[in-house]
Amino acid sequence: MSFSQKTCSDIINHLKNDQLDVLAIGGGITGAGVALQAAAAHLKTGLIEMQDFAEGTSSRSTKLVHGGIRYLKTFDVEVVADTVQERAVVQGIAPHIPRPKQMILPIYDEPEATFSMFSVKIAMDLYDKLANVTGEFANKVISKEEVLQLEPDLDPHNLLGAGIYLDFENNDARLVIENIKQAAADGGLMASHVQALQINHNEKGQVNGVHVRDLLTQEEFDIRAKIVINTAGPWSDQVRKLDTKYHGSQQIRPTKGVHLVVDDSKLKVPTATYFDTGKQDGRMVFVIPRFNKTYFGTTDTDYQGDFQHPEVTQDDVDYLLEIINRRYPHVHLTIDDIEASWAGLRPLLSANGGSDYNGGSDYNGGTKKSISETSFNQLIKAVNQYQSGKIGRSDVEKVLNNLQAAQSEKTPSASSVSRGSSLTVDDDGLLNLAGGKITDYRKMAAGALQKIKSILAADFAMQVQLPDSKKLQVAGGHFDPTQVDENIKKYTQIGVDKGLSEAEANKIANLFGSNAPQIFALADHTTAAPGLSLGETLALHYSLDNEMTLTAVDYLLRRTNHILFEADTIDQIKQPVIDEMARYFQWDNQRKQQETENLDKAIQQSQLADLKRQDD
Amino acid sequence: MSFSQKTCSDIINHLKNDQLDVLAIGGGITGAGVALQAAAAHLKTGLIEMQDFAEGTSSRSTKLVHGGIRYLKTFDVEVVADTVQERAVVQGIAPHIPRPKQMILPIYDEPEATFSMFSVKIAMDLYDKLANVTGEFANKVISKEEVLQLEPDLDPHNLLGAGIYLDFENNDARLVIENIKQAAADGGLMASHVQALQINHNEKGQVNGVHVRDLLTQEEFDIRAKIVINTAGPWSDQVRKLDTKYHGSQQIRPTKGVHLVVDDSKLKVPTATYFDTGKQDGRMVFVIPRFNKTYFGTTDTDYQGDFQHPEVTQDDVDYLLEIINRRYPHVHLTIDDIEASWAGLRPLLSANGGSDYNGGSDYNGGTKKSISETSFNQLIKAVNQYQSGKIGRSDVEKVLNNLQAAQSEKTPSASSVSRGSSLTVDDDGLLNLAGGKITDYRKMAAGALQKIKSILAADFAMQVQLPDSKKLQVAGGHFDPTQVDENIKKYTQIGVDKGLSEAEANKIANLFGSNAPQIFALADHTTAAPGLSLGETLALHYSLDNEMTLTAVDYLLRRTNHILFEADTIDQIKQPVIDEMARYFQWDNQRKQQETENLDKAIQQSQLADLKRQDD
Repeated sequence: MSFSQKTCSDIINHLKNDQLDVLAIGGGITGAGVALQAAAAHLKTGLIEMQDFAEGTSSRSTKLVHGGIRYLKTFDVEVVADTVQERAVVQGIAPHIPRPKQMILPIYDEPEATFSMFSVKIAMDLYDKLANVTGEFANKVISKEEVLQLEPDLDPHNLLGAGIYLDFENNDARLVIENIKQAAADGGLMASHVQALQINHNEKGQVNGVHVRDLLTQEEFDIRAKIVINTAGPWSDQVRKLDTKYHGSQQIRPTKGVHLVVDDSKLKVPTATYFDTGKQDGRMVFVIPRFNKTYFGTTDTDYQGDFQHPEVTQDDVDYLLEIINRRYPHVHLTIDDIEASWAGLRPLLSANGGSDYNGGSDYNGGTKKSISETSFNQLIKAVNQYQSGKIGRSDVEKVLNNLQAAQSEKTPSASSVSRGSSLTVDDDGLLNLAGGKITDYRKMAAGALQKIKSILAADFAMQVQLPDSKKLQVAGGHFDPTQVDENIKKYTQIGVDKGLSEAEANKIANLFGSNAPQIFALADHTTAAPGLSLGETLALHYSLDNEMTLTAVDYLLRRTNHILFEADTIDQIKQPVIDEMARYFQWDNQRKQQETENLDKAIQQSQLADLKRQDD
Repeated sequence: MSFSQKTCSDIINHLKNDQLDVLAIGGGITGAGVALQAAAAHLKTGLIEMQDFAEGTSSRSTKLVHGGIRYLKTFDVEVVADTVQERAVVQGIAPHIPRPKQMILPIYDEPEATFSMFSVKIAMDLYDKLANVTGEFANKVISKEEVLQLEPDLDPHNLLGAGIYLDFENNDARLVIENIKQAAADGGLMASHVQALQINHNEKGQVNGVHVRDLLTQEEFDIRAKIVINTAGPWSDQVRKLDTKYHGSQQIRPTKGVHLVVDDSKLKVPTATYFDTGKQDGRMVFVIPRFNKTYFGTTDTDYQGDFQHPEVTQDDVDYLLEIINRRYPHVHLTIDDIEASWAGLRPLLSANGGSDYNGGSDYNGGTKKSISETSFNQLIKAVNQYQSGKIGRSDVEKVLNNLQAAQSEKTPSASSVSRGSSLTVDDDGLLNLAGGKITDYRKMAAGALQKIKSILAADFAMQVQLPDSKKLQVAGGHFDPTQVDENIKKYTQIGVDKGLSEAEANKIANLFGSNAPQIFALADHTTAAPGLSLGETLALHYSLDNEMTLTAVDYLLRRTNHILFEADTIDQIKQPVIDEMARYFQWDNQRKQQETENLDKAIQQSQLADLKRQDD
């Protein structure tokens, strides 16, 4: 079942000629999840993405399946329970991707600390209870001395100790591509680099398809679909604007999150670490080891710029370096230490007060729900009265207290299929699945499929049987999720038997899961490409054949994260990869030149070359 | 050990002539707790109270030793842990007073509900864990049907079910008098109706006593004391103003709490019930059965009026009746159903943002800590920018979210001996123990005694041995706190053996604890006074002899709560009580007339006679 450039024209032809049951606009985690479930339900499914799959947003998260322990501060136990339970579901359907990873939460005796040593223990106990965590992964508290043994560079001043609890790391871009691949394997027509230009309607004014442009050929055509679902993440509002029948207001209010990567010789943490910024801004920051690198983030700033290319700014760098250099007073990181970076948008719903109950990572102070009109007006009035001397500061605080209570106690609206996301049907039938957190993608998609099922039954007399989405494993995830280590080890051994080094075989097994044996099998008729190891060659070939990898950036940034976490070998590998892709795709010199330029640009952007230049 | 009008002049003489180690100004629970511990430490202890003991504030609480489950909404686990652990301590030192009482917390599906069925279970589990509650008192959730079986009058509309958990009822005024009696028994000079007029200083400007007026004789005199401690509750600021050396700012910002009592034939609840007001104001209201009555409250309004006589207003009545009539749609309570009432002030610290972490009952929305100057200014700035159109509503919400995080995460200041209270030493040596919640009185006093010990050591070369205050039982509480029911039963039997009815003997045993046998022993040489039962006669005699009961109001309102919870027999008992007191104190007719008028006034005030008259 090839899913590659070779099958592109086939997919496009089907999109042109078939009438689809469901067409998703947007190939991030939201659309990928919908497509997987729709295809598994034997619906004629299509998905279009104007960039590479996951390129816009879903490859730019904190790369954790974070349980949100911080939400316990506002006793949002339903949210935490939902998240940690759904995390277990995702681990079951994509067992090679989310991996348990202990998290250290150092506690400082400083103003506005999120947790004290006492409350962190209570929070972790509650968290473990909600997540049903026991045994080796059960939380514990450690003393200041034990923290400093683990992280000798951590600031000892005012350090009280730490909590250690279970969190999960994630590979966001691979979670998307494995969903996309699975949908394709189940008959879904999954097309990257196809842009929606206009929503089409039938004579009754109901949505019946999308007018699109194939950005690789510049050809425009119509795709006919019974149901069109907008899964465009930060672009949701733009997609809605393509629908001339829609006159609603803006739904998305994105914020930008930035992560920076340094070599672990500059900053080494034994496991993921999560602490208050120390800036009394109510935020927390992650410091996470991956391969031989350490990355940290995120920022959380309102974003109004170009959605397609959110950039890391000097302010972002300054903010994060200030925090890291405060917490690790000996490391003295500067911008020159940054080997890679990424910036991404959180597709937050403005109805949620622009905060991310289920955003890619979590920020913002306390509550995450919007404030009622009445409460908001009360506040404005109180501030005015305060300023005109009619009431005292304490009266304003009283209004704030009440407002806060109201805010933190608001129940989620019935239309939200999971907290922080929303599923709406416009008057013309356009479905919109927006907001949400990566961890919730399966649940959000399941909610959308329920709606799709009922529309197909009501309007098209179609009876659809929905499979249990909790059991639909993604590509690469077809193995026993309770036996992850054993299976990874087994796959690794197959690679070793084919002549790969153990490290390389293990890396491939971790990235590609149950597809690893298929990769290793390529060794029977493949030799190492010039400048690449055998393992690198096999993985590249597999990805080109099966993962709709069209460019070197697709491969080195999103399919493998090489640009992010192996920056020190990127110069050495980039030309051999391009050479091998050129050979594989039979690129001419001009195309090869273009690809090289694009790759260099992506690497420079990740390495913050422009900012470093300004700095000199 | 008599402690009565007969010993008054003796106490006053000692206060005039002795040099005290410690003098407390204010005979509510704060001063009573300090006096008990100081006397137990063999310090020469005095206390002056300008009204009856507990009259101003400490007899006017919700009469619960409430664990504060609602604070879990903001994950204030330290506060809840402190409170429930201290509650156990108080139960140990005053075992006849706080009694376990299950609390029903009905959950409604309505906007801004404090708890959902899920979160209330989690909150109760956490609460039981912090309080170490297991077994018969462990929390549980019940279905809507079970709630309605227990409380058939409760509004079934949107009712989801309820949580049931352990709380404790309290007798606030008796907790004060038992502390006062114990302090007196241990040598403390405890004087009611003595008013502080001025703080005295030595030649170095250090506090060395208080100039006072005996309000019963109008005599003025000086009391000399090494240490003076201001325990005046809502009057703390006024007492400080008596100190000409003090120029600080106002510390207390009281709010008023109102409770109303109706007969249980009008509104019957099987056990204490605690619910959201349904007004989306972030507040909750208690409905509590006691004897054959049901009382409910409280309001929470800023108070600037006369501290000595906080009154129930029409607005207070309207607010509470609206809530009760909403939650119990069939009861249709009107002001004419109100048999008794009380209004009291919470001595909240303005540094706490005027909210009551540990106030007499609990209100206010979410956080209870003050907002930093910076955060507050950020908010004011944001609202101004919003109003001038420079930023959007969502930006204001973002500021609010951060502010809220900062607010809820603030660590308590080191000077607070328990949350919500403060212990300060002014430049001239005046100690001030202010704020706090009834439940925390023992802990607050223990903090003050530590300070007193160190001052006596440093300035007076006195070595003081402080006993373990967790083990200092109050008067009436000298029995095994793990055997409360057994002891009450045993005491009751003694009363029955002396010829009292079981109900009456039981009532006396419950009110007076280990002093009940002493009361029953009076039967050997006492017969029933005209119009009073034998039990009533004995209890009155005991109280006159041993509880510094000087007026009929002291007895019927504070020593027994008769005015509050037995309003239907008050007309029948009031004259016989006055007659017997007149005989006992040898009042002349004029005094008797005056006492009758005072009692009638207290009864009318409790019954809201003025408001009812306006209503007609």
